[in-house]
Amino acid sequence: MSDIGQILAARDRQSGHVRQTPLLSSPMLDAIAGRRLLVKAECLQHTGSFKFRGAWSAITGLPEESIRRGVIAYSSGNHAQGVALAARLRELPACIIMPSDAPWPKIRNTQELGADVVLYDRVRESREEVVERVNAVRNLALIRPFDEPLVIAGQGTCGLEIAEQAGQARIDQAEVLVCCGGGGLTSGIALALENRAPGLRPRPCEPEGFDDVARSLDAGTIKTNARVSGSICDAILTPAPGELTFPIMKRLCGAGAGIVVSEEDCLRAMALAYAHLKIVIEPGGAVALAAALFHPDHISSDTVVAVASGGNVDPSMFRRALDRLGSDAKKTAGASD
Amino acid sequence: MSDIGQILAARDRQSGHVRQTPLLSSPMLDAIAGRRLLVKAECLQHTGSFKFRGAWSAITGLPEESIRRGVIAYSSGNHAQGVALAARLRELPACIIMPSDAPWPKIRNTQELGADVVLYDRVRESREEVVERVNAVRNLALIRPFDEPLVIAGQGTCGLEIAEQAGQARIDQAEVLVCCGGGGLTSGIALALENRAPGLRPRPCEPEGFDDVARSLDAGTIKTNARVSGSICDAILTPAPGELTFPIMKRLCGAGAGIVVSEEDCLRAMALAYAHLKIVIEPGGAVALAAALFHPDHISSDTVVAVASGGNVDPSMFRRALDRLGSDAKKTAGASD
Repeated sequence: MSDIGQILAARDRQSGHVRQTPLLSSPMLDAIAGRRLLVKAECLQHTGSFKFRGAWSAITGLPEESIRRGVIAYSSGNHAQGVALAARLRELPACIIMPSDAPWPKIRNTQELGADVVLYDRVRESREEVVERVNAVRNLALIRPFDEPLVIAGQGTCGLEIAEQAGQARIDQAEVLVCCGGGGLTSGIALALENRAPGLRPRPCEPEGFDDVARSLDAGTIKTNARVSGSICDAILTPAPGELTFPIMKRLCGAGAGIVVSEEDCLRAMALAYAHLKIVIEPGGAVALAAALFHPDHISSDTVVAVASGGNVDPSMFRRALDRLGSDAKKTAGASD
Repeated sequence: MSDIGQILAARDRQSGHVRQTPLLSSPMLDAIAGRRLLVKAECLQHTGSFKFRGAWSAITGLPEESIRRGVIAYSSGNHAQGVALAARLRELPACIIMPSDAPWPKIRNTQELGADVVLYDRVRESREEVVERVNAVRNLALIRPFDEPLVIAGQGTCGLEIAEQAGQARIDQAEVLVCCGGGGLTSGIALALENRAPGLRPRPCEPEGFDDVARSLDAGTIKTNARVSGSICDAILTPAPGELTFPIMKRLCGAGAGIVVSEEDCLRAMALAYAHLKIVIEPGGAVALAAALFHPDHISSDTVVAVASGGNVDPSMFRRALDRLGSDAKKTAGASD
C-alpha cells in the first residue's frame, strides 16, 4: 500500500539530487484558460521529465543487496532516462529495453547517460520477454515504470511541492490536472494532495484513443485501450491503469475525473508554453496544459494547476507545434484589434 | 551610487511578485563545456526575461508622486514587457516606445500587457525625440533600461539568487557569465556577488560587432559600437555601456573580463538549451551560455554559471536554432559510436 509516509521518505532521500521545479504562469495563458492557471514545470526536472523522481526513489529505496548487480527497466524514453541517470549517480550498471520506434533524442540521451540500451520491435516482441532474456544472464533488479510503490512515492514528491507552492500562493482550492499514462504520477500526486492540500483535486488527463484511465474511473474497474501505439503522446501510452495505481485513483479522483484531449490540442499547448512560459514540453507532457487551456467547460475551480510532465521532444515534432503558433498568434492579434 | 543596500531593498519589494528562477544543469552540457555548468534560467522570469526585476524595482521604488500619471520607457522588447507588466500590476498607465523592426512577439506581448505602444523608425527618428513628443502632453515618468540606480538594484536581485543557489550547491569559486547590453544586469549581479559570494567573478558576454563593454573594460574608458543594429541578438544591442553601469563593471569585472561570441554560437547554444534544459532562450539571452559552451579556453574556473537572460524569440528564429541541432546531434551520436 502506498501512503504519505512513503512519499515523505522518498523526499528525504531526494535532498540535493531531485530538483524542485517552479510553478509558472502568464497573464496571456490565464486569459486563454479563462481562470488563473499555474503550470508545474516538470520538464525542468533532471532528464527532462518527472520520471527521475520515481527512478531515484526506487534506486535509493530498494535494498542494497537487490540492486548490487545493477538495474533494468523498459520504457519508451522518459523512465529510461530517469533510471539511467539515477543508476549513474549511484554508480550502478543500467540496462534499458526501448522500442525501436521511440523518439531518437530519448534513445540517444539514455545511451549518453551510460546505460546499455537494448532495442526491441514492439510488433514482434514483448518487452517482458526481452527483460527475461537479458536477466537470464545478468539478473538485474527490474524497476517498473509505474506499478511499483517506491516509484509512486517518488512521483508523489511532485505533489508535495504543488501543495507547498500553492500554499505560498494562498491557493487552497484548485483542480490539479495531471498527464496520465499508467497512473504513477497521478496516484502519487493524489496521495500527497489528500494529505497536504485536501482542497486540491487531482484529475488525470489523457489523449484521445488512450483514455483507459478516464474510462476505468467511470466504470469503477480497469478498462484497456484498443491500441498500444499510434499517438504523438508516446510518453503516456499504456495499455491500462496499473493494479497499484488504479485503486488510488479510484478513491481519490473518482468517476468523471478524467479529461481527454486531441493531438491538435497538445500541439497548440506546446506552442503556447513556448511562447508564454519559455519551456519546452513534449506532446505527452502537454496533455494537462491542453485540457486547462482548451477544455474550460470541464473545469469548475477558479484556479487550475496543470503539470507539464516532460519535455523530451524531437525537433521535427516541436516544429509541428511551432506551426500552430503562427495561426494562434494571428487569431490573438486579431482579437485585440 | 548603486550598492548592496539598494539591491537588498529591491528584493524586499519583490516578495510574491518576482519569481526566483532555477539554476539548471545537464550532464550533456557539462560534457560539452568541459566543466560543471549551471544555467540561471532568467527566461522563466515573468515576461520572459530578467527585465521584470528592474522594472518592478523602479515602479515600486520611485516616489508615488513622480509616477502618478504613469510611466514611459523605450525598449526593443524585453524592458518594454517588464515595464508594461509592472505598471499593470500597480494599475498605472504605461507608454512604450519601440522600434518598428523589433521582433513581433515582443511588440504584441507588450500591447497585450496593456501598454500603449508607440512605434518609431530607428533610422529616421531618435527614441529620445519620441519620448519628448509623448511627454509634452502626458508627462510620464521615464524608466531608463539600464542607467538608473533602481533598475540596477532590481537586476542585482538575480545576483543575490545566484550567490544563494551556488552556496546551496557548495560552490564558492566560479566565473559568472552574463549576457551584456548596457550593463544593468552585469553591474547589478557584480555588486551582489561582491557582497555575498566574493569567489564568484562576473564576466560580461557580448555578440561580435557589439563588444563595446569588452573593449571599454580593456581600455578603461567608455568605447562605442560602430553599428546600432544588424545582429540577431536584438535584446542586447546598445551603443555603449552606461555612465552608471560602466564604473561598476570597471571596478568589479576589469580588463580582459569580456567574452565575445558569434551569432552561430548563439543559435547552437539555443538549440542545446532546448535539447538538454527544456528552456526557450533568445539569441541575445544565449550569449553567456554560448561563451560557456564554445569558448572554454577563455574560462579558468572548474565551475561556470551562465545567465540565460531572456526567451522572447520569434518562432522563425527558433527554427533556425533547431536547424543546428540536427548536425550537432549527428556529431554527438558519431562521437559515441
